[in-house]
Amino acid sequence: FRILVTPGDGIGPEVMEEALKVLGRVQQRFGHEFLYEEETIGGAAIDRYGVALRPETIAKAKASHAVLFGAVGGPKWDDPRASVRPEDAILGMRKQLGLFANLRPVRVSPELIGESTLKPEVLQGVDMVVIRELTGGLYFGKPKRRWENAEGRQAVDTLRYSEREVARVCHVAFQLARQRRKKVTSVDKANVLRTGQLWREIATEVGKQYPDVELEHILVDACAMYLVRRPASFDVIVTENMFGDILTDEAAMLAGSMGMMPSASLGRQRKDGTGIGLYEPIHGSAPDIAGQGKANPLAMILSAAMMLRLSLGLEQEAKAVEDAVDAVIREGLRTPDIAGPGAKVVDTRTMGSAVA
Amino acid sequence: FRILVTPGDGIGPEVMEEALKVLGRVQQRFGHEFLYEEETIGGAAIDRYGVALRPETIAKAKASHAVLFGAVGGPKWDDPRASVRPEDAILGMRKQLGLFANLRPVRVSPELIGESTLKPEVLQGVDMVVIRELTGGLYFGKPKRRWENAEGRQAVDTLRYSEREVARVCHVAFQLARQRRKKVTSVDKANVLRTGQLWREIATEVGKQYPDVELEHILVDACAMYLVRRPASFDVIVTENMFGDILTDEAAMLAGSMGMMPSASLGRQRKDGTGIGLYEPIHGSAPDIAGQGKANPLAMILSAAMMLRLSLGLEQEAKAVEDAVDAVIREGLRTPDIAGPGAKVVDTRTMGSAVA
Ligand SMILES: CC(C)[C@H](C(=O)O)[C@@H](O)C(=O)O
Ligand SMILES: CC(C)[C@H](C(=O)O)[C@@H](O)C(=O)O
Repeated sequence: FRILVTPGDGIGPEVMEEALKVLGRVQQRFGHEFLYEEETIGGAAIDRYGVALRPETIAKAKASHAVLFGAVGGPKWDDPRASVRPEDAILGMRKQLGLFANLRPVRVSPELIGESTLKPEVLQGVDMVVIRELTGGLYFGKPKRRWENAEGRQAVDTLRYSEREVARVCHVAFQLARQRRKKVTSVDKANVLRTGQLWREIATEVGKQYPDVELEHILVDACAMYLVRRPASFDVIVTENMFGDILTDEAAMLAGSMGMMPSASLGRQRKDGTGIGLYEPIHGSAPDIAGQGKANPLAMILSAAMMLRLSLGLEQEAKAVEDAVDAVIREGLRTPDIAGPGAKVVDTRTMGSAVA
Repeated sequence: FRILVTPGDGIGPEVMEEALKVLGRVQQRFGHEFLYEEETIGGAAIDRYGVALRPETIAKAKASHAVLFGAVGGPKWDDPRASVRPEDAILGMRKQLGLFANLRPVRVSPELIGESTLKPEVLQGVDMVVIRELTGGLYFGKPKRRWENAEGRQAVDTLRYSEREVARVCHVAFQLARQRRKKVTSVDKANVLRTGQLWREIATEVGKQYPDVELEHILVDACAMYLVRRPASFDVIVTENMFGDILTDEAAMLAGSMGMMPSASLGRQRKDGTGIGLYEPIHGSAPDIAGQGKANPLAMILSAAMMLRLSLGLEQEAKAVEDAVDAVIREGLRTPDIAGPGAKVVDTRTMGSAVA
């Protein structure tokens, strides 16, 4: 198995180290060989090469089974007017590798239920996956530019979707729902946006091909409300890129910390259900705590588990990693982000080693 | 004072009746004369006139000091492909009256703190106003259309902002912050959107004119998180139209129910600080409970209070209405949406009469 490793900036390298530690243990225990290549991306790549993502890196990604992606960005590269930005790395990977479906599972572990700002009774039974369309919509639509005219500065972004783009991500949602509680919630803004109307129409049509799966449509503003009001009612949510960005960060708060939230970004699948994927924690590079051993490596480790399952087809190995994470949580190990009063606080490495 | 009243659909007429009852009491008690005109809008207007908003209605609005707007929409008019839609009424009002700043205050009354799904300690001290840009962005940008080509159905919406549009709504935010805790949080997606970069740049420039007000910038995804994580840290939030739609519905959940949340939509102000405004609850027409006396009229009543203050310049009268709402809540009156176990549940009219 060939794996491209891109640690990135901030806490990226620290949490990556722990994920690789755990994968090392998987190799040993299950007798696999993982071949790693490492590439510099993000702010670090801007410093070194002048760009956040080199064509060489994309070529290596394409020759791999999966990409393990840390995090990018930091104050050093934060000028909004800069022509190269750390985010180019993640946006470029997603687009150039055709990773159109971003899966973000949200589960609340019983031991961590107290870490959330929501009441425990509301969190009972929360177990959803948000599928965010990842290569279309406002992120990539053209025109996307700034200019100046007699009336001053102007800017435009374009929210564009095609039938094909909506249909393929909806299929991913329905297929996943079939393996779960058989409910898809499609989120749009059909009462205001033309793309929202298209989204709803296509979701409905795709849904007809999955008569065993229940389909509901809700507006994005209502969804933002229901995620806080009755989160346990969701199974699979599918939505467009920008809405998914907002709603998944909101949903992450159900679990108390972003430090627990993995994600998988998938493109076209092979016949056996696997395919090249990019795996990243949904947290950012957290420059404020970088290098201090405070970062929670579990999101990165759980992302590696998703890689084992979805790109390498190693279900048993994925399960072993997830079980190990559950076990260390049950044993009471906590990084600062998930440490309630009186908890046993450990550093990034200790947490990684415990899982390994 | 000339007031245009547009009750609309669903629970709109029921909650409007209670707001007018309270305003009747204000007239009597403070010796004012309110001249009402009533217009049919939304779904009801589609049935009667074939359109959701007639030019006559806009003309009457322009000749008024304020518009009291109920709610529009319902399953009967819900076909996403219909060429006329109830929402045209509210979108048309906002655009044609130039109401570019939508103020949505979020306060959590101590008596209702238990109604929220968030823990009480997180809600302590929550007191913010979200200012949503209301006549630009994705809602109104052109092109906004659907078409079909060899690759199937396509749709596009356009997110466009000009310097002038961003600056004027930012000024509203800073001016309001001056009367409050002197902090503005500007929300954008500057790491992905060109309009986000423009937004951040202009917000920064406008902020320089208010050196006494602290300005912070956060990304919209982070904001969705912080609203649940540490809501008390916000004073005034200012953001673009679509983000504001999503974030304010999320923020409404802090108060437990949308039934408590008023809003004011303002355009250019007169010298004395007043100006034509539209006042509406942020809840919808709730067709499922319409006509059953279950609707909470407080959001509409509090919207009328905002009208007294912001369009009619009647601060003392506004305060009297708000105090009356606080008093009935303290006395324990509850409509079903805010009724905890053991609460004294009353119907829409009883609640309105109690406030009056
Ligand atoms: C870093 C940024 C470009 C990215 C996004 O907006 O997609 C991040 O917020 C995410 O959710 O993965
Ligand atoms: C009814 C709808 C068009 C409206 C909007 O999206 O602005 C509503 O959700 C609101 O927030 O006032």
